[in-house]
Amino acid sequence: AKKEDGDGVPAAPSSSGGGGKAALKVPKGTRDYSPQQMAIRESVLATIIQCFKRHGAENIDTPVFELKDVLTGKYGEDSKLIYDLKDQGGEILSLRYDLTVPFARYLAMSKISSIKRYHIAKVYRRDNPAMTRGRFREFYQCDFDIAGAYDPMLPDAECIKMVEEILNALQIGEFQIKINHRQILDGVFELCGVPLEKFREICSSVDKLDKSPWEEVRNEMINEKGLSPEIADKIGKKIQVSGKPNDVIAQLKSDTDFMSNPTTKQGLESMELLFKYCQLMGVEESSVSFDLSLARGLDYYTGVIYEAVLISRGKGGAAVGVGSIAGGGRYDTLVGMFDPKKRNVPCVGVSIGVERVFSIIEQRSDKKIRTTETQVYVATAQKGLVEERVKILSTLWGSGIKAEHSYKASPKLLQQLQYCEEMQIPWAVVIGEGELEKGIVKLRNVATREEEEIPRTDLIPILKARLS
Amino acid sequence: AKKEDGDGVPAAPSSSGGGGKAALKVPKGTRDYSPQQMAIRESVLATIIQCFKRHGAENIDTPVFELKDVLTGKYGEDSKLIYDLKDQGGEILSLRYDLTVPFARYLAMSKISSIKRYHIAKVYRRDNPAMTRGRFREFYQCDFDIAGAYDPMLPDAECIKMVEEILNALQIGEFQIKINHRQILDGVFELCGVPLEKFREICSSVDKLDKSPWEEVRNEMINEKGLSPEIADKIGKKIQVSGKPNDVIAQLKSDTDFMSNPTTKQGLESMELLFKYCQLMGVEESSVSFDLSLARGLDYYTGVIYEAVLISRGKGGAAVGVGSIAGGGRYDTLVGMFDPKKRNVPCVGVSIGVERVFSIIEQRSDKKIRTTETQVYVATAQKGLVEERVKILSTLWGSGIKAEHSYKASPKLLQQLQYCEEMQIPWAVVIGEGELEKGIVKLRNVATREEEEIPRTDLIPILKARLS
Repeated sequence: AKKEDGDGVPAAPSSSGGGGKAALKVPKGTRDYSPQQMAIRESVLATIIQCFKRHGAENIDTPVFELKDVLTGKYGEDSKLIYDLKDQGGEILSLRYDLTVPFARYLAMSKISSIKRYHIAKVYRRDNPAMTRGRFREFYQCDFDIAGAYDPMLPDAECIKMVEEILNALQIGEFQIKINHRQILDGVFELCGVPLEKFREICSSVDKLDKSPWEEVRNEMINEKGLSPEIADKIGKKIQVSGKPNDVIAQLKSDTDFMSNPTTKQGLESMELLFKYCQLMGVEESSVSFDLSLARGLDYYTGVIYEAVLISRGKGGAAVGVGSIAGGGRYDTLVGMFDPKKRNVPCVGVSIGVERVFSIIEQRSDKKIRTTETQVYVATAQKGLVEERVKILSTLWGSGIKAEHSYKASPKLLQQLQYCEEMQIPWAVVIGEGELEKGIVKLRNVATREEEEIPRTDLIPILKARLS
Repeated sequence: AKKEDGDGVPAAPSSSGGGGKAALKVPKGTRDYSPQQMAIRESVLATIIQCFKRHGAENIDTPVFELKDVLTGKYGEDSKLIYDLKDQGGEILSLRYDLTVPFARYLAMSKISSIKRYHIAKVYRRDNPAMTRGRFREFYQCDFDIAGAYDPMLPDAECIKMVEEILNALQIGEFQIKINHRQILDGVFELCGVPLEKFREICSSVDKLDKSPWEEVRNEMINEKGLSPEIADKIGKKIQVSGKPNDVIAQLKSDTDFMSNPTTKQGLESMELLFKYCQLMGVEESSVSFDLSLARGLDYYTGVIYEAVLISRGKGGAAVGVGSIAGGGRYDTLVGMFDPKKRNVPCVGVSIGVERVFSIIEQRSDKKIRTTETQVYVATAQKGLVEERVKILSTLWGSGIKAEHSYKASPKLLQQLQYCEEMQIPWAVVIGEGELEKGIVKLRNVATREEEEIPRTDLIPILKARLS
């Protein structure tokens, strides 16, 4: 890559154009969306927005970059993945890493103490991309959050209900929502004897359990994080517990160690309330699991945490997680980090990982999705009729009908009709010298290839009737 | 602003949070969109997308950043306004400056020789912001472009037609679309004696005429660009010509100087064809003006150029332009700059400056726009009924009804009903002990405050009927 001097003026300016030397690629980990891909993206996002609106959410947006200070100290070990902007004089900026920190900054700045909002936008992470599996450096997040001081677990349960609704509506296969509580993790660390100042970094290690086996995580805890093997093993035993909520609750209640610690005990009571609300909201028991090994990497979570994974069934029906598709949790102190008076606004939310959804649907799509909504194509049967074509188009557009024609003055009829079939345009209006003389047009049903002659003056009402 | 070392790790990490010290602002020239503003933005964009789809456009998207080389040499003097990303190891990247250059890169990279697409996304310019007038450093562009080798002026005229359709549909007041042709400007420079290598920079000077008086532009041409006063004056006389297309065409045809130059003559013939198609498409004569002083700043234009300005009427009805709201033109050689074989794809397009539209509508809006689509609010009249509330909500959501409730376990009835009125939610379902015992609910029309008792089993069908 060519470097340049700092004033923003290219080192080798060429005002009449670079002459074909520009690198012909997109940045690593990013992609263009073709019309086909956009059609899928639009339909997926519409499904998600429908759910957000069904639950009464408002919509907000924030800038793609933030002052670097806003992002500092919010992401723990992942901070190294933040994209920084060049210092071109002025403020020091970074691209947003998620939509949660900008949301908290927005709440503090606008002095908002309660809101239920969604935010759909791209975020940026200098991670190792795995594009076929839907992991990009630029990717969409679809976030829904409920901010405000409310009664325990009512907003939290609704977030889980929405994850279930969205994943059902998207029809991308079997899934499971793993749920845990940061208080339970903290309590477990406490009763296993982890020093308080190591809680967050041990939490980061636990978070790796969804990708790495326990042995590796154990090694990291001992060799990198400095825990004793005894403490690590104790943690391993306590957190490798998961299953149906009622089963896990019963198991934990019989664990005197667990119940003797006030933090874990309180966390468990919260989870019982959460699962009760989930049940009342109609969340299927099979959709959720209580999983004590779920940690979530980010520093800012303070309560319930959850992550939805897609399930692939192996031989004999054994469930295997094939990757996270949604996640979130409660973060009650993040807004306070921004507020000058440290006033907190309790928040809980969920983020849908739509890039993976796009990938799944792209891979199974039959490539016949329409990429336009054109209803009528205006075709000419002979040369030199472009002006008549344009007049008809103008009438169609004026009546709100979606209409196209060829941008060639004298296109071949066959090519025009082939275009209609290819683009799945339902109707073609065909005119030739003969039709013009008689004041009629031919109306062609593109799929059946049937044609009928209709008076030109009746064209709009007839089309409107056919299209309604 | 705090600086940091280059490895992406904050100089003063605080894994447990920054503690209220983060700067509470958005970057200069950017803004958050509140739910009210988002409601306006969604409605404006929907109007524009409707027009794009009426003309058969497909939708694409590209990454927010490009390899810096892709942008180099495309924007002339404006290149200094490009945001660069910090070199964190890897590719050298810049934020996109417009949607046109990424589109051309996309066409070359994907080997597409014809497409009609729209692209709605944010672009970035380190310009002096004037936020109340809708000028930001991060702003939306809504671009529509037609790429492909077609017959003259057919796609060009449609772009102008679409600008008229969109500005009419947005109802933001009187406007005029100024139209010119780069060939005419080049021909004028030629016949006035401007050296060929100065064409583009003199074009940049002419472009400033919409904001600066001729005297200033003349000074720039002479003192900064090195033209003689005679040549500058000759240019001034030739380009300060504008008015109704037919009047200007007649005036130019009587100018023997103008008609003797093959470049200007050819440009004029193109403009005649363009205006003929515009008329056939139903573009109002009053919507357009032929303006020889229109230059457009960007280097890449090669043919027709246009710019729509909003008009304010002074005393006596004199029209004053109050700022550009849309612009575009033909750029036939931009794709070739990216193609390894310099294969060109002729393009013409238009970009709608929606930020100014948002500003205008925000300023006149009566602040009563709904920011949610909630149809039903479920309220409780006594304490301790949260579980019953949640059960009803679950049924409503399951039937696709947009429904909310309070996240407090025992909210006051008055507060719940006030919330419904404030948010303009049309219906409230109210339950109390009495209703539960009788197996009924109260259905309240929020606007009229009328209440009726209906059997709980009939709730969904009755609501569906009322909401349809």
